[in-house]
Formats: sequence, C-alpha cells, structure tokens
Amino acid sequence: MTDFPEIDVAPRVLLGPGPSLVDPRVLKAMSTPLVGHLDPQFLTIMNNMQIMLRQVMQTENDLTFAVAGTGSASMEAAFANMIEPGDDVLVCINGYFGHRMVDMAERYGATVHTINRPWGEVFTPDEVKTALEQSGAVLVGIVHAETSTGAMQPLDEITKLVHDAEAYIIVDTVTSLGGLPVRVDEIGIDVCYSGGQKALSCPPGASPLTFSPRAVERIQNRKTKVANWYLDMSLVGKYWGSERTYHHTAPINMNYAFREALRLVAEEGLEARWARHQANAELFWDGLEALGMSCHVDRAIRLPSLTTVVVPDGVDPKMVTGRLLNEYNIEIANGLGQLGGKVWRVGLMGFNSRPENVLLLLAALKEIIHG
Amino acid sequence: MTDFPEIDVAPRVLLGPGPSLVDPRVLKAMSTPLVGHLDPQFLTIMNNMQIMLRQVMQTENDLTFAVAGTGSASMEAAFANMIEPGDDVLVCINGYFGHRMVDMAERYGATVHTINRPWGEVFTPDEVKTALEQSGAVLVGIVHAETSTGAMQPLDEITKLVHDAEAYIIVDTVTSLGGLPVRVDEIGIDVCYSGGQKALSCPPGASPLTFSPRAVERIQNRKTKVANWYLDMSLVGKYWGSERTYHHTAPINMNYAFREALRLVAEEGLEARWARHQANAELFWDGLEALGMSCHVDRAIRLPSLTTVVVPDGVDPKMVTGRLLNEYNIEIANGLGQLGGKVWRVGLMGFNSRPENVLLLLAALKEIIHG
Repeated sequence: MTDFPEIDVAPRVLLGPGPSLVDPRVLKAMSTPLVGHLDPQFLTIMNNMQIMLRQVMQTENDLTFAVAGTGSASMEAAFANMIEPGDDVLVCINGYFGHRMVDMAERYGATVHTINRPWGEVFTPDEVKTALEQSGAVLVGIVHAETSTGAMQPLDEITKLVHDAEAYIIVDTVTSLGGLPVRVDEIGIDVCYSGGQKALSCPPGASPLTFSPRAVERIQNRKTKVANWYLDMSLVGKYWGSERTYHHTAPINMNYAFREALRLVAEEGLEARWARHQANAELFWDGLEALGMSCHVDRAIRLPSLTTVVVPDGVDPKMVTGRLLNEYNIEIANGLGQLGGKVWRVGLMGFNSRPENVLLLLAALKEIIHG
Repeated sequence: MTDFPEIDVAPRVLLGPGPSLVDPRVLKAMSTPLVGHLDPQFLTIMNNMQIMLRQVMQTENDLTFAVAGTGSASMEAAFANMIEPGDDVLVCINGYFGHRMVDMAERYGATVHTINRPWGEVFTPDEVKTALEQSGAVLVGIVHAETSTGAMQPLDEITKLVHDAEAYIIVDTVTSLGGLPVRVDEIGIDVCYSGGQKALSCPPGASPLTFSPRAVERIQNRKTKVANWYLDMSLVGKYWGSERTYHHTAPINMNYAFREALRLVAEEGLEARWARHQANAELFWDGLEALGMSCHVDRAIRLPSLTTVVVPDGVDPKMVTGRLLNEYNIEIANGLGQLGGKVWRVGLMGFNSRPENVLLLLAALKEIIHG
C-alpha cells in the first residue's frame, strides 16, 4: 500500500470565518483515550456538556445537546425535525446561509416563501410581519449572525411577532454563540443551532442544538416520521435524554473536546467573553480605519465575531489572501456570493479573539497593501 | 456558570462492538493544531486519505471518502443517495442493522421488501435471487458483518445475481473493513459504507463510503434532489472531488486522526492485518472452548472481528458485563434484540485485536463465571 509521511502542517493563524484555532487544552482533552458511548463515565460527560451548553445558550431547554456533525448537520436537524411535507416556511435571506435554509427546507417538502435584503443588511420586524401574514408560514428561518456578510440580526421583536402568529422560529447562531449574547429563553427562540468551531473554539464535528418545549411538542405531534434517521430528534433525544437509549455511536473524542471548550467558556464567564470579542473587534475596526480601510456593515449591526472588510479600489483580493497565507500563515477568507471580490471576511472568534492577532493582521495587511 | 473538573476517565479496555481503542499515534495526530478546511495543506491531507482509503476498500472508485459523522451517517448517505421515492428496495434482515436499513429506506420514500433469517445466520444466493425476482427491487441492502450477531455474509454470488437483475447493492461493512477482506471492486459492490471506530481503530466521527461509477451515474440521473442536504453526494462529492467546492466545514481533527489510522493499516499491510484478526479471534474461540463456553455463530461464517459468546445456563449476563467493567475496566456488550440475554458481544478489532487482550478477557471471564 502507498504510505504517506506523518502529518505535518504549518501553524496557521486562523482568522477566517471558521474553523478558528482552539485552546491547547481542548486538543489535550480530545486526545484522552476512548471509553464506550454507553459507559457510565461517558454518560456523565454528556450530562456535564448539556449543563454547560444550556448555560452558554441561556436556556433551560431539556433537549439541548451537541449534534454529531459539523454546523450544517445541526442546521439540517433543525429544519428536518420542524418541517412536515407541505408546511409553509418563511426564510429571511440576507446572505449565503439564508439560501442554504431554503435548499434544506425544500428537501423536507416545505413550501418555501422568502424575503430578501442585500447582503450586509438586516430585516426590520415589519418586513417579517408582513411576509408572515402574506405567506401564512408556520415556521420562520432567520440568521442571527450571517457568516457570509458580518451582519447581526436583532431578534427580540421578530421572535415575538412570530409567536403572536402562532408560528415557530429557527435561528442560526453559528457565528454568534459564545462570542455575543444568544439569549434563547429570554428572546423566545424555538430552535437554535450553532457550530462548535467558531466562537466556542472547538474543532468542527460537534454542533450545539436546542429545542424549546413548544418545539419538542410540535415534533412529538408530527404526522410523518422525520425524513432523516441520523438527525431524528425522537431517536437522538432518547440518547441525550434520561433513557440513554443507543442511537448512533457518539463521536467520543469530539465530545471530550467540546466539553473542554465549554469549560473554558465557563471559566471566562459569558459577559467577559462577549466583552473580549467586542473589544478586539473594535481594536480591529479602528486599526482598519487608521489604514484608510472600511467595513461593509453598519457599525450598529456589525458582528464582533466576523468582520467584512471592504477591498480597497485597485487591490486584488485573492492576491492579498494568498500572500497572507503563504507569507505569514494567516488565513482570512474572500467574499462569497453578492460580496465575492468586494470584501474579505475576518473572524476574531473564541480563542482567536486576541489583541495580538489583531495587531498581526493589521500589520500584515499594511505590509501587503501599502508595501 | 457551573464548572466541572478536567476530564478524567478510567482507562478502559474496549472489547465491545465499538468504539475500539485506538493507537496512541492516532490520538497524537488528532491533536495537531487546526488548519482551514480549504487550506491547500488540508486538501493534500484529504487526497492522502482518499488514496489510502481506496486501498483499504480495495477499490478504484473516484467517489471514496470519509463522511463527517459516525457510521450511521455513512449508512444513511448510502440509502439517501441511491433511493428515489417509490423505488422498490429489498433488505436482507438477519440482525439489528438490517432493521435499521428498512427504517432508513422507508424515510427516503422506498417501498421496502424484506427477507429474514434468524440472527446469527446468513442468506443463500438463491434466497436473495427469489426475493429479488418477486419484489422487482432496484436496490438491495445487505450486511457483510452483522455487529449484532457476529455473522459474516458471503457476498460474491449475491452481488453477481443482483447485477444480473440490473439492480444495485449496498453493503454494510462497518464491522469488517480493516479486519477482514472487503474487496469492493472484485466483488462488485455498488455502494459500500463502514465506520472508522471498529477495525480501522479511529475515534468515531469519520466514516468510509464509496460509490462505484455505476452508482454515481444513478445518482447523477436522479429525478429528485437527495432528501438530505448534509449527505447529498452531488454536493459532498464536489468538496472531495477535484473542484474542492465548499459544502460543509470538514471535521479537521477527525480527518487528521483518520489519516493516521489509515497510515497504520498501510504500514501493517492488509493481508497481515486480516491474518492478525483471524489469529486473535481463534485464540479467543479456543480459549472459550477450554472454559466450556461456546460461540453463537457457526465457525464457517463467524466474524473474526466480533464474536457472539453464548451466555452459559444459570449465568446472569448483565452481572458479568457489569463486573468486567467495574472490577477490571473491560467493556464487552450484551446481546441485542433476538439475542438479548442470550449472548455477549466481544470485539477484537483493529488496535484491540491483540493476544494480551484475549488472555485478559478469558482470565476475567473465568474468574467471574467460575470464581
């Protein structure tokens, strides 16, 4: 058989839209020897994770756990379980992940209605209200933190009006959870999913998901089986619930890592963590301004975790990302979709939200763009 | 926030149906710092993995890769992509995983036909042929190595007769790949899936999957979208193919681990690895006999990777598994379904297929059962 040498990768500073780097403690925990997925020791680990994850998601929801897959899997779990064929679903599209919501919802048989905003803007409650009335949707999908645009969607009023219409709301917090407030219960989010590899700084492969009691009730009253075995909450929920019934083999070491990532959040404290993300983001934004550069998103709705930086006139964006990676081992990302060629995407998330990373990136950008 | 102490688990000897323990080199590789999922360095790692995985699966199939989930996810990927609503599917049930195939196939809209054998037996080619003719199935699901029974299904003739009927065959090799021959191309398997956490000795979370060119063609000619976004091969295949188009964020460290697990297989060599599994299994079977115990499955079709041991009369099976775990840190599993209370399931897989583990387990069983 063909063999290859031992793994050997250059040490990257990951300042793109994710994955982010993780604390060495997380890597150490991840390499703890395995135990079985029904071992009482592992069940305790699952309990610990659930308690800490509820705190991070600011929820008391029983059904709160980490999906055995990357963020897209928790996203699909949300839609797969909440949709029955023929349901009217309203998706608010202001970036790449809104489009993905549409694709997923359609695969589960929904009749999808959409409202759109240019990438980098957010929706007003009135827009959602009107669309909800016109569509008669029973379910609304919206993105709290659009990884493709860097915009933060205010949710308080929207969640309220969705509930007034007796509909349910699914919120994407992939790029916000752990980096800025995600108050699931206070806002009244029915289903909230996230990724581990962004502001929680866990390697990708374990992804937060929570369902409110009202959402669980909807799932329990389904007329059809969830059209996805791996992500069927009526089965997964029994493994993460008190029954601990075997469903699929849990990714043991990913859960070790995720538990350690949650411990780091607990030690830092949520308020302190949010403040750190905000402070380092502002340091970056001010530094960009000093370099004569600007951000794509209005400051009032700008994510601290993910900044879209406007590519200056006459600069080749891919030349810059290429040189950052090849000369300085720094990863940032190019724009996607409507913002392709127009912005760079810079993540300052979790372990990576550090003043030294901000200074380094600004210095490297200055060197490359201004020589 | 509630905090918990650093992770601290007793060192288990995992001799159940999986996960198995992994070589320390795999844990070390897994804790390599992250790079981005589109980083050229990571794309090279993906290429390495695909080349080695093709060798382990004995196939030249282009579409050969590791699903970002545990074995059940690669299983679901196989069915989700090959089934269109209304397709007639034949499932051969002789254990737990046959039942799971039925459940999954139904969720994707198949009309499912089944043939059954008592748990621990296997199907003859004639049985499959007759059922195929009667059902008019376009797709057959069968388990090569039934983790719930320890039986090994011969496949050469069955695959041939499925092809003669212009149907496709999906084969579950979760508990065989890496421990006994799985010759995908030679046998002519259309879709073959496995798990990383059994005889390949990788932590759960990356799961082998391969599609023959004929299966890929079927997928390309689908009339409907695959009813599963995360596992849609038309999207996943572009990330693992030459386009390297972003689909979902790959589980970076799981892939590091899986690459190292494959390197260990390559170093040992497939033939040597199969011989090791067989030799240690026989050592175990002979030792059981010397203790006056027996195996549930006929020796001719008995898996070397997973043995179902008959619980002797008058012995409480759960007392034994409990004492093995609590007194000796050894994990074996109780029987499932038809074999609940009747057998124990003992895995000697990958890193764990070692004479010292056989001696230890036999000694502990002797101590507990015979005092």
